[in-house]
Amino acid sequence: MLRFELLATDGLARRGRLTLNHGVVQTPVFMPVGTYGSVKGVMPASLQDMGAEIILGNTFHLWMRPGQEVLQRFGGLHAFEQWQRPMLTDSGGFQVWSLGATRKISEAGVQFSSPVNGDKLFMSPEVSMQIQTWLNADIAMQLDECTPYQTDGQLTTEAQARHSMALSLRWAQRSKAEFERLQNPNALFGIVQGGMFEHLRQESLQALVEMDFPGYAVGGVSVGEPKEEMRRIMAHTPQRLPAHKPRYLMGVGTPQDLVEGVAQGVDMFDCVMPTRNARNGTLFTRYGDLKIRNARHKADHQPLDPSCTCYACAGRSGVAWADGGREGFSRAYLHHLDRCGEMLGPMLASIHNLHYYLNLMRELRAALDAGRFQAFQAQFQAERARGV
Amino acid sequence: MLRFELLATDGLARRGRLTLNHGVVQTPVFMPVGTYGSVKGVMPASLQDMGAEIILGNTFHLWMRPGQEVLQRFGGLHAFEQWQRPMLTDSGGFQVWSLGATRKISEAGVQFSSPVNGDKLFMSPEVSMQIQTWLNADIAMQLDECTPYQTDGQLTTEAQARHSMALSLRWAQRSKAEFERLQNPNALFGIVQGGMFEHLRQESLQALVEMDFPGYAVGGVSVGEPKEEMRRIMAHTPQRLPAHKPRYLMGVGTPQDLVEGVAQGVDMFDCVMPTRNARNGTLFTRYGDLKIRNARHKADHQPLDPSCTCYACAGRSGVAWADGGREGFSRAYLHHLDRCGEMLGPMLASIHNLHYYLNLMRELRAALDAGRFQAFQAQFQAERARGV
Repeated sequence: MLRFELLATDGLARRGRLTLNHGVVQTPVFMPVGTYGSVKGVMPASLQDMGAEIILGNTFHLWMRPGQEVLQRFGGLHAFEQWQRPMLTDSGGFQVWSLGATRKISEAGVQFSSPVNGDKLFMSPEVSMQIQTWLNADIAMQLDECTPYQTDGQLTTEAQARHSMALSLRWAQRSKAEFERLQNPNALFGIVQGGMFEHLRQESLQALVEMDFPGYAVGGVSVGEPKEEMRRIMAHTPQRLPAHKPRYLMGVGTPQDLVEGVAQGVDMFDCVMPTRNARNGTLFTRYGDLKIRNARHKADHQPLDPSCTCYACAGRSGVAWADGGREGFSRAYLHHLDRCGEMLGPMLASIHNLHYYLNLMRELRAALDAGRFQAFQAQFQAERARGV
Repeated sequence: MLRFELLATDGLARRGRLTLNHGVVQTPVFMPVGTYGSVKGVMPASLQDMGAEIILGNTFHLWMRPGQEVLQRFGGLHAFEQWQRPMLTDSGGFQVWSLGATRKISEAGVQFSSPVNGDKLFMSPEVSMQIQTWLNADIAMQLDECTPYQTDGQLTTEAQARHSMALSLRWAQRSKAEFERLQNPNALFGIVQGGMFEHLRQESLQALVEMDFPGYAVGGVSVGEPKEEMRRIMAHTPQRLPAHKPRYLMGVGTPQDLVEGVAQGVDMFDCVMPTRNARNGTLFTRYGDLKIRNARHKADHQPLDPSCTCYACAGRSGVAWADGGREGFSRAYLHHLDRCGEMLGPMLASIHNLHYYLNLMRELRAALDAGRFQAFQAQFQAERARGV
């Protein structure tokens, strides 16, 4: 089941409430990515403390490991990873596509060799729906072909993008049919493709809207294109999707991208950036990004972000440094943990970055609730530009 | 300051309360090891939840990184790593000794090259006391020479062990003098050496007792000797130390070793085993050890230990599986995390193993409080022998 209520709008930006089988999600929302059934480096208890309302699982990875037998015994991903709130699974298409030379795409689906044990495997809209049914996430995604920005070193042509988009539409139809045949009790989203061509995006979304999905995603962005190209598609597609249904911009992005996405009418985002950057020592803060490996942090008593209330910055009290809290971990300590290769470094950094993303969405929602979204945008830009 | 009260005894076993500058520690106690100012893979909040009352820091490692300048700016290790409860630092002697060929021991101290940047460095009783003074742990340890079990591939001879023990005694005297000169407000422990020779251990402890330390450690065990040799020293030395002062058996050991150590009158233990084994996939349970990599766990719904109330086994509710709790993580999930190299695997395993050690000590203390230590020992053996 899926119910979506639009609570407020401000220009194209939307504030909504999404009710799913495992609970309610306030939108706009950021969804932490739990590829293998674990948001890397973060305990489920910490995700709860940070207010994560929905997380992702990657169908392809979970199909490979632990696989169908184990996950079916647990009745799906929720019990296996002990996450009781809503969940979304992708279709596995992007990962299969990323296998490169070892996969062969046809109308029927994608033939590939398992990167785990070399087995010959076949992914199709039907297979994806079958896997996502035993994963049992609240939201499933249609199988699509993610149109690349470049094909064989050249910009993908209009003809190539059209061909790919049309295949995704036929796969959308087959995904929907199989999802219904399986009587999957969750919600299936269609995915708009069309590369960097607005008219193809338009064709794709119209055809998908006719199929009447309970929600729509914009795919094929954040696939190596320049930022202005991504912005062009973000400015085109989301606002043209049905107003009364949730809109999900896949694989995006930076804090700036999230704010701009919301301004363009996007309701849902996911990205590995907060956790991946955390492991690489790049921390997001209200006042810009911070590289913890930089020697300037060596003896700095301040937490990563003096305004932040996460466990890394404020300890258990949750009182920010700027408000007089002194329980957080210093930049000096995090710099030291990174230098020594201590696991606690990426653990604290992952909590901080995810908290930053989730809190940014909380602030965006509050601004939309209060009808001051434009003022929020201006403040966000100014603060991020200030520097740490 | 240090105050030690003996609350109960049962044979040689002792139940006590140790009051230090940063708080009270119930003994017998296990001290998790935080080499670089972090107990590997575990958040301080988790350590608090598990009831850890005192943790270790390694002087040698912290001297190398982050070093004196940074730690002095923080006023010591407590503020740097945000641990407000008691702490103990070793002398750095063991690590210098472990550098092997690159170090040169003389009466004055140990010359060695920094493993971090190659700098020529010198460790002496005075230097160790100076470092431990700026680390400011509640308990500091004298610099000693850890007598090896073997020397140049041969069993260490009585003459070699005597020579080494005598040097440690002279260093004990110098450590104490420097510790007092520095007006370190914490407590300094002397360390009994003497290798595998009871008469040398006796000489060592008598000389140390004459120096009147507030607590005593037994060093030079768990250095590669067979288990029966360790047991022989455990059966000799602890009970001969002053009854009204705390006794610390350094670097020991397995759960069995802890129970036997308590039976021999030991009050304090430390060991990297719970966290190191966790990272290697070896989990301690009430019913024996469990190798999470073993394929038999692949689809097992049970938590690591059905009787355990740690976060890994019981989730936030803390209700054990055996008591009907179903919020813990399954063996299947932990097996999967290990296979996928997910950080959450060692994170949960480290929490579980440390919780096991800390809970074992809680149970030992409760048994001593209730005057049923012998019954506890028998039950411990029987349960551990049962198998998982």
